[in-house]
Amino acid sequence: MTKVRILDRKQIHYGEISIRRDDFFLNGKTISKVIVEHSPSVGLIPLIDDDKILLVKQYRHAAGKTLLEIPAGKIERKETKKQAAHRELIEETGYDGKISLLTSWYLAPGYDTELMYVFIANNLKKIHNVVGYDDDENIELKIVNINEAIKMCVMGKINDCKTIAALYLYYFQSILKAKTIPF
Amino acid sequence: MTKVRILDRKQIHYGEISIRRDDFFLNGKTISKVIVEHSPSVGLIPLIDDDKILLVKQYRHAAGKTLLEIPAGKIERKETKKQAAHRELIEETGYDGKISLLTSWYLAPGYDTELMYVFIANNLKKIHNVVGYDDDENIELKIVNINEAIKMCVMGKINDCKTIAALYLYYFQSILKAKTIPF
Repeated sequence: MTKVRILDRKQIHYGEISIRRDDFFLNGKTISKVIVEHSPSVGLIPLIDDDKILLVKQYRHAAGKTLLEIPAGKIERKETKKQAAHRELIEETGYDGKISLLTSWYLAPGYDTELMYVFIANNLKKIHNVVGYDDDENIELKIVNINEAIKMCVMGKINDCKTIAALYLYYFQSILKAKTIPF
Repeated sequence: MTKVRILDRKQIHYGEISIRRDDFFLNGKTISKVIVEHSPSVGLIPLIDDDKILLVKQYRHAAGKTLLEIPAGKIERKETKKQAAHRELIEETGYDGKISLLTSWYLAPGYDTELMYVFIANNLKKIHNVVGYDDDENIELKIVNINEAIKMCVMGKINDCKTIAALYLYYFQSILKAKTIPF
């Protein structure tokens, strides 16, 4: 059992993204650690049908390049994770559907609090044609065959970790169901 | 082609983890974005043999819990990514081996610059018995059968995104080679 006792907590920066320094006592040692505070978030695997997935292509300024990703975004204040999932799906793709929670994971648990809830979305229906509501969302929709998407992961053509993990997780479940390897 | 022009860059915080605000011009719109600046990093898939992988179990203060992960860490100043990979492998597991680059991915490209290079490590040899050099590394080594690790991902018992992506990527390559599904 890991015993942790917080000794001191200092807010270094407070804003859209906050940083704090925690001093804590862990298994007999005092440790000081800088932590990025980020809201929990949602990621979605939107299925057009069993074989086709909806991905978003967008310029990511932190990476300095355009990446192909699953739709995702943070859970806003007073929102449940399901509400956030529907909102992000509609905002980023123009579709809504039936969603079900698949798993949750930390993106960078060494220093970042962000926990992402991952949903499967199916029975998709188009709500509107506008994609990318947010100012910084310059989104292009891509419908990709799941085999093609998996190949892109293997070949290093998809470079977003959550997208790779999500695609494999979905794909793996479907090949386990089918008991065959499609390529 | 995405055209980006930086209009203003403000350093909000400078330290172990830095934050800046960039104002930039993208496809006709002015956007303001807060970015976490984090060094590039390395992650490793250390193979004891074709079926067994070395994972590290450690308390992660940002997550507030103990997680099972692949060994990983940031590339230090003046280090190449290969040097960082060997150092992290030795520090976190006590083993060193032959490493080869598999892929690279962003962990949270919506706001974080961190790019992780992912290596396979094999021909492992024990260098020493000490694991977890860093103050905040309270590491326990786990040798896990790859089928077992994949099951843990499917069942939501591994909750670190890079670990899930790395395990699937490796596993997927090996089932493609074998052309059978082991469970």
